[in-house]
This record gives sequence, structure tokens and C-alpha cells, in this order.
Amino acid sequence: MSSHVFDQALALTALPDGTWQGHTSPAYANMVGPFGGITAAQVLTAVQRHPQLLGTPLSLTVNYAAALADGAFVVDARPVRTNRSTQHWSIELRQNEQVVLTATAVTAARRDTWSLDDHALPAVPAPADVAESSAKLASAWLNNYEFRPISGMPPSAWDGSGHDSLTRQWVRDKPKRPLDFAALACLADVFYPRVWRRRATFVPVGTVSMTVYFHAGPELLAKTGTGYLLAQAQAQAFRNGFFDQSAQLWNEAGDLLVTTHQIVYFKE
Amino acid sequence: MSSHVFDQALALTALPDGTWQGHTSPAYANMVGPFGGITAAQVLTAVQRHPQLLGTPLSLTVNYAAALADGAFVVDARPVRTNRSTQHWSIELRQNEQVVLTATAVTAARRDTWSLDDHALPAVPAPADVAESSAKLASAWLNNYEFRPISGMPPSAWDGSGHDSLTRQWVRDKPKRPLDFAALACLADVFYPRVWRRRATFVPVGTVSMTVYFHAGPELLAKTGTGYLLAQAQAQAFRNGFFDQSAQLWNEAGDLLVTTHQIVYFKE
Repeated sequence: MSSHVFDQALALTALPDGTWQGHTSPAYANMVGPFGGITAAQVLTAVQRHPQLLGTPLSLTVNYAAALADGAFVVDARPVRTNRSTQHWSIELRQNEQVVLTATAVTAARRDTWSLDDHALPAVPAPADVAESSAKLASAWLNNYEFRPISGMPPSAWDGSGHDSLTRQWVRDKPKRPLDFAALACLADVFYPRVWRRRATFVPVGTVSMTVYFHAGPELLAKTGTGYLLAQAQAQAFRNGFFDQSAQLWNEAGDLLVTTHQIVYFKE
Repeated sequence: MSSHVFDQALALTALPDGTWQGHTSPAYANMVGPFGGITAAQVLTAVQRHPQLLGTPLSLTVNYAAALADGAFVVDARPVRTNRSTQHWSIELRQNEQVVLTATAVTAARRDTWSLDDHALPAVPAPADVAESSAKLASAWLNNYEFRPISGMPPSAWDGSGHDSLTRQWVRDKPKRPLDFAALACLADVFYPRVWRRRATFVPVGTVSMTVYFHAGPELLAKTGTGYLLAQAQAQAFRNGFFDQSAQLWNEAGDLLVTTHQIVYFKE
């Protein structure tokens, strides 16, 4: 096994009933429980290691039903429908027999077709021209990424002065690691909460549901390698204790690798 | 029961094992099988009629695993985790014991909080100033909507001349019907395929997975009533036989009611 901290976090042990046992990773701890991105990556890994897997990940939806406790968990990933070129997955993550996460995924055999990105990489400086963030790190998982912030960083003061919800940053695994689907699933959740930016007000938050669409296939992953990704996120609506986030991940060449969305709880 | 065609399509019969039996609706037939929006609405209705329901719909993900055959189906909606203010649902739709759709949903007790729409209603003419579409209707379900197209209508010729994937239209149920969550789930899928617009080329398509975030609670639904919704959709990426769609539904007052995303198969 790779000694990379991300691969260590994705370690799963096959159980006799076809499920997998994993463990939360201290290296990916968030303020409360694990970083949601690493849990999404662990769920996707259980799908990708299934002996009946068809194709590669196309979409993933994870619903965070409860806070994971530090320690062991079981991932139960079942292919419930296998078609000629797509396969549908139902997934549960359990601790102490209790459901703490539900998920669905679709894997697909990709084909060469007409292709086009309709959401272009925004005009941003190259990674080499953007300084690496030296911000104080509030959570362990942040240490596993190299951030080169362009715009929309966390407020420097909680003074209610926010006026937009847009963040743009270059990011990649630290230490560098060749990009794969699990890494993309994790990176889909790499943004700090949009409500903090929009309001410049600190409120407790928690992702309720996240969906990831993988526009990259294996060839584009290989082409991207260990390069930086431009990670952009923006909210559309905040109401009744929940807000959404729409985000995109492009490689340096401008290929749109992932589009992703989440709905997030906020207090007050 | 209401005699409205939409309510007729949502009719479900409780089965002894806690599942529901429904039927595909000829009034919502698409070119092949039922319109995906009506199936999403049927799934959500099974959740909303469950005796253990907590709160109102917050998010819904439906994965179209196989084409539904015309006729009866069973919806199995189970609350797998109930928290203080959110409830997580796992759902399957089956025909002849085979899974044809998987879904997850989250329902939530909404609270009064700071609220703000960060994606504003675009500058568009009022519904009264936009003519109702008189386009020839290719599928039965289109008859159940009043469309007032603003921009981005289907290509008038399949000549490969497309240059964008954006569509804006006012829409509401025909005949008029007070807006509810099921109607929003159905309307989330009201757009013709983005790949047709972007390429001005006809290719077979099919939605693989759709996620709907309900930013509207009961009060905002009541306020919206039977008014028009501005329905906007745009693609971000087309690659390897799949493209995505991001869409928004606002009421006439400019409240953002729904943000929704889907990943769609296309041939060639």
C-alpha cells in the first residue's frame, strides 16, 4: 500500500458478508468528527473495490445522517442494478449497527464521444504566481492540502461585512499524489462554508448531502496527474437554516473534471 | 382526491408491508417510458405520506437505473435515520422485483433564520409579456405545462449550429395548481436536453441521476401559489457520453425555490 496519508485513510478490510471495515483517520479530522470529503472518498473506495464493479465513477451522492464517531465503521456497498454500460449502487455506512451515512452512486463504462466544456476555467493567475496559504489551520485535514488562494478567502473579521459567496483557489494533495476518483470526491468538499463568507459571521454548520459528478475519466485523470486543480465554489440560496453550494474543479489545462453540489445546515 | 391530472398521477396505494403501489401515468408519458420528473414526484410522495415523516423535503436524489415499463410499480421508502430536526430516507422503486430506480431524500424541520438569495432572478420580461409556446408537442407530459419561452428554445434546425446551453422560460402547471414539493420535484426536470441546444444535433438521451434542493418551505410555497416559475437551465460539461445540467426555479417575486442538477447520458 502507498504510504501516502490519503491512501492510509482509504484502507478498507473485507468482511465475510461482503461489507468493508474502515476507520476514521486522525489525519483527516475536522472540528467535529472527520472531514466530510474523506468519508465520501471512503464510500467511493468501497464501490471501486467491489468484485462486481462495472466501469468507473460517474456520480456519487452522500447524505451525512449523523456525525461519525472516531473509530471503526462498516461500509455496505451493493450493486442493485447492472446495465450494459451503467451500474447503480446503494450504500450505507454504519457504526454500532446505526446508519450514519446513506449514499448512491452510478458507475459507467465511458466512451469516446463529442465533448465540450461549457463552463470555462475562469481567468485566474497560474499556480506558480499565487502564494501558498500560510493561514492558521483550524482542522487537521487542512494539512493534507496545498492551498493557493486567489479570491474569496475566509473573512479576516467576523463583522457581518460579507457581500459575496465566491471562492477560487488552486489546490492539490500535500504531499503530491496522482489524481484519482477518490481524491476528486474528497476535493469536492474542500471549501470552507459559504455562509461564513457571505455573512462574515461565524455560525455552526454541517453538510447534509453532497453530490459529485465526475466529468473526468481515467485518461483525463492520468493527464492531470499531480497538477493543481482550480477549485471554485459559490452559494445560490440561504434559507430556513440551510444553504447550497455549487462548485467546480478544473485542471491547469482548463478541463472541467468535476461539478459538485451540496446542501448544508447552518445555525441561526 | 383532486381531479387534477398531476394528483391523479401521484396516487399511491398502501401495501401491507409498508410499501406503496403506484402506476405510470399516460398523461406524463415521455418518448420512451414516463417523464422522469413525474417519477421523482411519485417517489417524493411516498416519503411525504409515510406515517413516520419528520418535517418537509429538503433534498432528493433519484437515480434512473432502468426505463420504467408502463404499468404498476412499488415504491419502498424507508426512514433509516431520524434526528432531532432531519430525517434520512432510502428509497427503491421496483417493477417485477427488479430495481428500476434508487433514491435518497432528506426531510427537515425548517426554522426561521437569516435568509438571502445569492443567485438573483435574471432580468427577464414578466410572464404576461411573454407569449405562450405553441410548439408542436413531442410528448404527452408537455401538455400538462404552460410554457412561456424567453430564450434558449430547442433548435429550429438540427444543423450543428449551437453555441450555448442556456434556456429560460416561465412555466406552471396546466391547469393551474397550487405549488407543492411534488410539483417542484417534477418541474426540476422540465427542461429539454442541454445537448440538443448546445450542438443543434439530435442524439438520444436519458437522465441518469437528478438531485433537487428545496430552498422553499411551506410558507414560500403558499406565497407562490399558482404563479409562474422562472425555470433556467445550463450545462457545464459534455464528455464521454454524459453531460450535466444545473437549473434554478424562482417564483415571480424572485424567491429562489429550487436549485437542481442532473447528469444525463447521451449517445455519440
